[in-house]
Amino acid sequence: MSACGELIGVGVGPGDPELLTLKAVRALQEADVVAHFAKAGSPSTARTTAAAYLRANALELPLLYPITTERPVADPHYGTAIQQFFDDCAAALTGHLKAGRTVAVLSQGDPLFFGSYMHIHVRLAKQFPTRVIPGVTGMSGCWSAAALPIAQGDDVLTVVPGTLAHSELLNRFRQGDPAVVMKIGRNLAKVRHALVEAGRLADATYVERGTMADERSMPLAEKKDDAAPYFAILLVSGRAWHS
Amino acid sequence: MSACGELIGVGVGPGDPELLTLKAVRALQEADVVAHFAKAGSPSTARTTAAAYLRANALELPLLYPITTERPVADPHYGTAIQQFFDDCAAALTGHLKAGRTVAVLSQGDPLFFGSYMHIHVRLAKQFPTRVIPGVTGMSGCWSAAALPIAQGDDVLTVVPGTLAHSELLNRFRQGDPAVVMKIGRNLAKVRHALVEAGRLADATYVERGTMADERSMPLAEKKDDAAPYFAILLVSGRAWHS
Repeated sequence: MSACGELIGVGVGPGDPELLTLKAVRALQEADVVAHFAKAGSPSTARTTAAAYLRANALELPLLYPITTERPVADPHYGTAIQQFFDDCAAALTGHLKAGRTVAVLSQGDPLFFGSYMHIHVRLAKQFPTRVIPGVTGMSGCWSAAALPIAQGDDVLTVVPGTLAHSELLNRFRQGDPAVVMKIGRNLAKVRHALVEAGRLADATYVERGTMADERSMPLAEKKDDAAPYFAILLVSGRAWHS
Repeated sequence: MSACGELIGVGVGPGDPELLTLKAVRALQEADVVAHFAKAGSPSTARTTAAAYLRANALELPLLYPITTERPVADPHYGTAIQQFFDDCAAALTGHLKAGRTVAVLSQGDPLFFGSYMHIHVRLAKQFPTRVIPGVTGMSGCWSAAALPIAQGDDVLTVVPGTLAHSELLNRFRQGDPAVVMKIGRNLAKVRHALVEAGRLADATYVERGTMADERSMPLAEKKDDAAPYFAILLVSGRAWHS
């Protein structure tokens, strides 16, 4: 009987292929199976980031979301479909792990920070040897691309998903801390409105595809168009940054 | 006349030398001068992390804090001394940059996230070509070492320095979000007390020197001794994590 394979959650960082860690590169070059999440019909962003480091003969296992933004998250059908999907993913990986294959699951940014890998981790980490390789988060990539110091000294940093209701966003922005707003995508107009109401529009920088070849950033006040890609982030500075 | 050199803030990650990015390694191998912050008499943690990647003939420039925990931060003498120190550091780097040398400033974790590099950045980024290479944060290293998913879906993540007053810590913990408490060091007893009062002691995991060779983690409730090193972090989970 061969031993079980190892499950490895691999953070590939914010998008620049040079922002993979040495440890992530080594894991990819040793993995028997490389799994990556994507929307059906679109390439996996994490796979694109890591493409140069995949072994030519590794077995790739795309995990295709049955559903992404077509239904609101609060819709019970969404919950059922997505849980079934993660169950199916875990079952597919289980076959490889039981056969003794090392399985790397790619994660854009950091695996345990808003990453889909977490759903695999909670299903399999107690059954198989598992480790997680942290990655540079998308937000670090964005504030570095914008050259914007985000938090210092006694600052409290709040990371808020743009999917929250207007009233919750407003409550958070009124606290006055530096903030990062993730998952801007379709939520830009709502988030902008909450920032204006909290008197913090001038503190906000919009960053799109930070560290990727087509990155761009600008003061939110100058972003006229309310369309934004999924990999857009707002950086909201706190008190005037003092040196 | 030669052109000015470039200033590069280089994130070296949480402590494991394999968690440097490929981009950080390349920057270190190309830099003429490598600067690193340390307390006088102690080695720079960032330098220790990056040691294997420094060129043998690079000029090293230790930047030695005149003061660290000997005085409370609110003490006006602290503010004066530390601002003077950062001014002196910037002046020393200016000499190298004007002479056309590329200067890498090492930063444990990520340069713009609670890093001393920020104080150099705000003084020099408008005068010299400057770029920032993001790194894996200490907190990512810690939650990966503890294999603890920290934030998912619509979670709000709050990053709180342990230096805050008890009442402020309590307000934050009562919001019920997942939280990361940085700068535990001498603040462990105070932070523990606020967590107990907020009813969240059972949610807290203590992680010491995450990703370093001597890392350890345990439920905070099982950490008997209130002494903790500077590189200790608490991870406080939010609502029961559901898959």
